[in-house]
Amino acid sequence: MTHRTTKLLGTAALASLLLALPAFGQEAAAEEVVETVSEGVSADVVFILNSFLMIFGGVLVMWMAAGFAMLEAGLVRTKNVSMQLLKNISLFSIAAIAYYIVGYNLMYPLGNWSIGADETGGFLGAFGIGILEAVGITADGADDFSYAATSSDFFFQVMFCATTASIVSGTLAERIKILPFLIFTFVLTAFIYPIQASWKWGGGFLDSQFGFLDFAGSTVVHSVGGWAALAGAILLGARNGKYNADGTVNAMPGSSMPLATLGAFILWMGWFGFNGASQLAMGSVGDVADVGRIMANTNAAAAGGAVAALILTAIIYKKVDLTFVLNGALAGLVSITAEPLTPGLGTASIIGAVGGVIVVFAVPLLDRLKIDDVVGAIPVHLLAGIWGTLIVPLTNPDGSYINQLISIVIVGIFVFVVSLVVWAILKATTGLRPSEDDEALGLDKAEVGVEAYPEF
Amino acid sequence: MTHRTTKLLGTAALASLLLALPAFGQEAAAEEVVETVSEGVSADVVFILNSFLMIFGGVLVMWMAAGFAMLEAGLVRTKNVSMQLLKNISLFSIAAIAYYIVGYNLMYPLGNWSIGADETGGFLGAFGIGILEAVGITADGADDFSYAATSSDFFFQVMFCATTASIVSGTLAERIKILPFLIFTFVLTAFIYPIQASWKWGGGFLDSQFGFLDFAGSTVVHSVGGWAALAGAILLGARNGKYNADGTVNAMPGSSMPLATLGAFILWMGWFGFNGASQLAMGSVGDVADVGRIMANTNAAAAGGAVAALILTAIIYKKVDLTFVLNGALAGLVSITAEPLTPGLGTASIIGAVGGVIVVFAVPLLDRLKIDDVVGAIPVHLLAGIWGTLIVPLTNPDGSYINQLISIVIVGIFVFVVSLVVWAILKATTGLRPSEDDEALGLDKAEVGVEAYPEF
Amino acid sequence: MTHRTTKLLGTAALASLLLALPAFGQEAAAEEVVETVSEGVSADVVFILNSFLMIFGGVLVMWMAAGFAMLEAGLVRTKNVSMQLLKNISLFSIAAIAYYIVGYNLMYPLGNWSIGADETGGFLGAFGIGILEAVGITADGADDFSYAATSSDFFFQVMFCATTASIVSGTLAERIKILPFLIFTFVLTAFIYPIQASWKWGGGFLDSQFGFLDFAGSTVVHSVGGWAALAGAILLGARNGKYNADGTVNAMPGSSMPLATLGAFILWMGWFGFNGASQLAMGSVGDVADVGRIMANTNAAAAGGAVAALILTAIIYKKVDLTFVLNGALAGLVSITAEPLTPGLGTASIIGAVGGVIVVFAVPLLDRLKIDDVVGAIPVHLLAGIWGTLIVPLTNPDGSYINQLISIVIVGIFVFVVSLVVWAILKATTGLRPSEDDEALGLDKAEVGVEAYPEF
Repeated sequence: MTHRTTKLLGTAALASLLLALPAFGQEAAAEEVVETVSEGVSADVVFILNSFLMIFGGVLVMWMAAGFAMLEAGLVRTKNVSMQLLKNISLFSIAAIAYYIVGYNLMYPLGNWSIGADETGGFLGAFGIGILEAVGITADGADDFSYAATSSDFFFQVMFCATTASIVSGTLAERIKILPFLIFTFVLTAFIYPIQASWKWGGGFLDSQFGFLDFAGSTVVHSVGGWAALAGAILLGARNGKYNADGTVNAMPGSSMPLATLGAFILWMGWFGFNGASQLAMGSVGDVADVGRIMANTNAAAAGGAVAALILTAIIYKKVDLTFVLNGALAGLVSITAEPLTPGLGTASIIGAVGGVIVVFAVPLLDRLKIDDVVGAIPVHLLAGIWGTLIVPLTNPDGSYINQLISIVIVGIFVFVVSLVVWAILKATTGLRPSEDDEALGLDKAEVGVEAYPEF
Repeated sequence: MTHRTTKLLGTAALASLLLALPAFGQEAAAEEVVETVSEGVSADVVFILNSFLMIFGGVLVMWMAAGFAMLEAGLVRTKNVSMQLLKNISLFSIAAIAYYIVGYNLMYPLGNWSIGADETGGFLGAFGIGILEAVGITADGADDFSYAATSSDFFFQVMFCATTASIVSGTLAERIKILPFLIFTFVLTAFIYPIQASWKWGGGFLDSQFGFLDFAGSTVVHSVGGWAALAGAILLGARNGKYNADGTVNAMPGSSMPLATLGAFILWMGWFGFNGASQLAMGSVGDVADVGRIMANTNAAAAGGAVAALILTAIIYKKVDLTFVLNGALAGLVSITAEPLTPGLGTASIIGAVGGVIVVFAVPLLDRLKIDDVVGAIPVHLLAGIWGTLIVPLTNPDGSYINQLISIVIVGIFVFVVSLVVWAILKATTGLRPSEDDEALGLDKAEVGVEAYPEF
Repeated sequence: MTHRTTKLLGTAALASLLLALPAFGQEAAAEEVVETVSEGVSADVVFILNSFLMIFGGVLVMWMAAGFAMLEAGLVRTKNVSMQLLKNISLFSIAAIAYYIVGYNLMYPLGNWSIGADETGGFLGAFGIGILEAVGITADGADDFSYAATSSDFFFQVMFCATTASIVSGTLAERIKILPFLIFTFVLTAFIYPIQASWKWGGGFLDSQFGFLDFAGSTVVHSVGGWAALAGAILLGARNGKYNADGTVNAMPGSSMPLATLGAFILWMGWFGFNGASQLAMGSVGDVADVGRIMANTNAAAAGGAVAALILTAIIYKKVDLTFVLNGALAGLVSITAEPLTPGLGTASIIGAVGGVIVVFAVPLLDRLKIDDVVGAIPVHLLAGIWGTLIVPLTNPDGSYINQLISIVIVGIFVFVVSLVVWAILKATTGLRPSEDDEALGLDKAEVGVEAYPEF
């Protein structure tokens, strides 16, 4: 694996680039072609590479669903593990269907806004099921030949939608019935997530009027999951026995640290697809180098978050708390997600480290507010998501701190209020909580009928 | 991640395609080249992209071996977990060697049939070890420059062979000795799987005479594993204590739901390689868009299977049984495997959902027949595999229902009968079952000597 | 998935290759271009494909960190599981930062040696942080347009550095405090690993003066981790109660075979990136076919190692020991890592099988020497690493047995001596071992404050 020649390239590389372009008999023809086959890559190859990047990324982001499942199964108590697993595989499946039926076109109306317009700002996208291109299209049959296959785009985007729902399940664990949870999941993935995502990624008003920047979704995905979870946690209340009248907190340690750690590693891995493939393009030298930058920065931020939590908990608690280190790494990942491209490696590490610090301080703060967040999803996804979004202008000159803040607030109010209303309706209809007896017995016996570890 | 331009492309895309093709000084030369560098992608790039797709897919399908191991370890009782893990890693290793020594050329004789011929129908392929192309080949050294590297093809195909063997181990868990199981694995992966696979994928008689369609192996892989498992289950008998004389069934719940769920997620992820890379081509706009279609459809079918099982068990049993939801997702995946390309997203979801329904009804049916299928592999892989294969003509006009049925029956009879003979020989020689004491003690202590969780 | 045409290609393929090359109006221009767009792939596409291969590989090698974490968590006793998980995620994070701050340029000085020179032999690389190319580079902005993006290279290489540190944690498990372990990790990943790696992969004296061959790191990565672990194990001593005065050994079985098996499968999967992407190139027919060869050989070697350990333990111990089979597969992987390209499938299987044999005999040997290697990392990574490196000349005519041996010895002495010094300094300062009480209590309670399975 000896690599990289030791000579530095300058004009030589330029010459080699020019040689790489096709030569032509006619100068005029050459000029026209040069525009299209920019830098020696034909439009077809660009299309193929862009599409494959999203396929690659989609597989990795799907894998994050397993990461959330393992993380949450490890952080709940034994009696609720099967329920947590059930919720995770079910929410992922429901999200896949909801996004197909309504979410995809709500999020990407391609100019056909139900409310608003590209020029004045889009507010509500199009209604209709997701339709892929026909089998075996040629370039002229592609929906957008300059971008990528609609199928690969759908495959990638549906995974982001599912990720948002995964975030909610962790916070509300151990005390919510399955039916209201799955109904909320449907509303979140069919409507709430796609509508607000359209404001930025569908070219809606946050994108066109506010210049909001959110590369891979610190706000659009992670904070949205966090706001929806926060609204649910407030209406749902804490687990019985979690908070004492005297203000003290009863620790309810998770059932399996190996599962939680596996979950964190899976999420770390999957995040390379989440951030890296959000470049949405790999058909030029610049694009693939950018994908590499994003990968390296994403890794650096996760490492920064883990090390920050490691050092901080060692200082504060005199012991190194594994769950904080795991959540520190995840907070580092969330923090870099709004802008994984423009920072250098050092800046990326520091942005991630701040995410880790946020987690260490926010977890006890939430407990003081008696907001029972079983896996720490609110600090990790909501607070680090806000941090990551706010800090974008530090490295990206196209960003504005005030517009980032305004956008965060707009998305936050929309998601929080709508979620609160939906949770309230569910509370009044299906009810949210199992009976006290069922909660004490554990949801595995009460609702799933399958114990996680029946022989132990 | 703002994406997709809002303008629709038509003639503009066509023009841009034409511009992407190299321009030439001579019209005649141009015409010749256009055929080869179809749509702006050179033959070398096509070769590279095709080969890489299979490498990518091979890694994902290999990962399915871990999925089967975790699924099965989670669904057997604690005393047999180490054995189940041992069987899974061993069968995967034996399959890799058996397929190299004899399976690969039996499956892909490239016209050199031992019995039969391409024109009249191939029945038995070629004998000989698998030989890869030399190091650093150029285009003229490639075995088939219009396809892909033999190495990438072998790497991808060996994983399919191993998958077939993985299916068997789950059904026969907890009461088969390791030696006969591993001998059967060798026979299955060296001979049974490759011979019947040659009939379709090696261009044999099911492909050439019957026009049998099986895109990625609902029949060729999954039902084959299922038939071999069924033959074994019949000869082996049920676990001691599973079925009572009065016809009632003793539940023997699996030891770890987190492992079973992890296994299902791993399989779901790996299936993207299983189906997606079975396109075997990614060197054109149409091929990469098709790979994306397959990915999206595969996901939709899994989701459909999970949701169908979720709703159905909630209605029937009043509780949502996690193991049914997991197997529902897997049945959805098996169902779509015979034709993951031609359906739309909605049809794919429904095809998968029917798979999920099959599982919910077939599991108790097998128990009534006193066929003890520990992990539900027969409903998932055999029955959903048959369903998926039968339904191909619904969306693929090249298929014929009667020819699909005939092919399923031919493959089924061959695999079931040969497997039955092999199992019978093993029963008469090595014996299949451990002693009653050993079975009661657990195979981990009796045969492996390593307990799965020694401290619990 | 019917594949491969049945006709064999020869001159036809050559003709098709030639046609794939752009045609030109002027013969002179054509000649110049042919050199650059070698075999129909433009320089830009080569750059993109090379870079993506490393991105793909980097993701897979990162995943190996999870593999080590699961393997080790499964092989330590319950009371030390959280600690082992904590060490694994922490070492990975520290490695990411250390390699960025100092390791990368020490390893790849690009000719700017602090001690030595390309011509006479490089000994100590350059000091400085890792700097990626700017966002959105064009070909002339690439550090090495003929190779790949620096970002993708860094991303791939940082994972190798982390792997080296992962190896150490397993050997020293259950009796080392976290602080000295993490400090050693920093020294290893910032200095020890990069310096010796520069000797080969940075173009240093082992590469330029000795013609040392180590494709993906049997010596440069695996034996280095093994030497560092061995030095630590000697200074640290065995776990209390492991060895009796009469020479007998107390078995201390691992807490979870499913986790250990999962870890082995993860490592097997990740190794496809480790070896396959070490080709560092995928922009030609030959390169992608070689990547496929490496993948197939890597799989064959792992299978060979597993089967060898399976058969051997069945013969020796009359039971098939799962942990030996897992370590046999890993030893097969380490064995093939020095030369995964040139062997055929059969040779690769045998090279791996010898690795499996080494493990079966070396594990009890280490116990006789009272070197307490909790997970068997020294047999797997050090001994099989030496074997794999020594055997390179069997299939690669560029190699020399004597130069391989000399290089192994030089790297071994350097790493072992420096590691011994660092461990000795740590022993004299922070101390290495927890108190006897803490060790008996378990490190999870003593240092982490989080039990792995609090409810069991």
